[in-house]
Amino acid sequence: MPLLHISLRAGKPVAYRQAIFDSLYLAMRDTLDVPEGDQFMTISEHDATNFRYGNAFGIMRRDDLVLIQITVFNTRTTAQKAALFRRIAELLGKSPGIRPEDVFVNVIEAAKENWSVGHGLAQFA
Amino acid sequence: MPLLHISLRAGKPVAYRQAIFDSLYLAMRDTLDVPEGDQFMTISEHDATNFRYGNAFGIMRRDDLVLIQITVFNTRTTAQKAALFRRIAELLGKSPGIRPEDVFVNVIEAAKENWSVGHGLAQFA
Amino acid sequence: MPLLHISLRAGKPVAYRQAIFDSLYLAMRDTLDVPEGDQFMTISEHDATNFRYGNAFGIMRRDDLVLIQITVFNTRTTAQKAALFRRIAELLGKSPGIRPEDVFVNVIEAAKENWSVGHGLAQFA
Repeated sequence: MPLLHISLRAGKPVAYRQAIFDSLYLAMRDTLDVPEGDQFMTISEHDATNFRYGNAFGIMRRDDLVLIQITVFNTRTTAQKAALFRRIAELLGKSPGIRPEDVFVNVIEAAKENWSVGHGLAQFA
Repeated sequence: MPLLHISLRAGKPVAYRQAIFDSLYLAMRDTLDVPEGDQFMTISEHDATNFRYGNAFGIMRRDDLVLIQITVFNTRTTAQKAALFRRIAELLGKSPGIRPEDVFVNVIEAAKENWSVGHGLAQFA
Repeated sequence: MPLLHISLRAGKPVAYRQAIFDSLYLAMRDTLDVPEGDQFMTISEHDATNFRYGNAFGIMRRDDLVLIQITVFNTRTTAQKAALFRRIAELLGKSPGIRPEDVFVNVIEAAKENWSVGHGLAQFA
């Protein structure tokens, strides 16, 4: 039950934004072993004046930059997280076609007891 | 000083969204012992194309799904978090009337020294 | 590579919102030693009905309240975080001129291995 918040510049076509969702879901299926239908994601579209980025770490970013914040269980290994990052960049590169320079991902971790995916229960505690 | 970010589909009436705020605040008062006026919450409304969810974990969700991300002190017990989840689903079920299947909650934890609620001070460090 | 999500009431002029970005970037340069160009920030503007706050902890807040959530490495000291809070309030007070009562900051921590700032790599693992 990763929860994803995706931020990008406003104005991309519907198909482009759906491809972002699809690629992120597939990347999680491939590397985090999430079950079918385990996709909970929002996209926030920002005007240029509400979206600020820089070129730190020697990476020349452009307006297509996508900021992805993923909250997951605190049970993933370093290798799993590295695989997730690789797969996300790979899949977003294919569809909708985002340059690898423009894929920024941050993972936040939350214990199993910190999730309720319905019915007011802590299903994984 | 929980900080809450709530994501849902766009188009709900004002009273509906105010009821979400009210119920979440009451749930925190009841289960986390937060003081009066300790409510810091935003709602982000998303078009269908910017809001993706699935039916993982055997729960049939609908477009009324509410994704609630709550950042709190890292001092809460498992029992407190479970009580919070229960109370949130219960109160949102009463007002504005959200099905328990459509209440998704994630808790993120931050140390006391990680909060400044005004004046540039770390009031709880 | 702090990642910042800033929430405020809708309607502030462009220059005001740019000043928020500038002051936050400068505060991070001053207190967290982030490199040049290390700014990744979004602003979400909310209607009154989607922005709820209270006066907890004896602070009389107004509609100019800015809720700032900063995700950083989990390597910062308590002193660094306190300095960050002070500097943010100081700089936002100067430009765009926000009352210190209206500056709310929460820091979330993520391990170095939890970041990919481009190319699908975990640059800091």
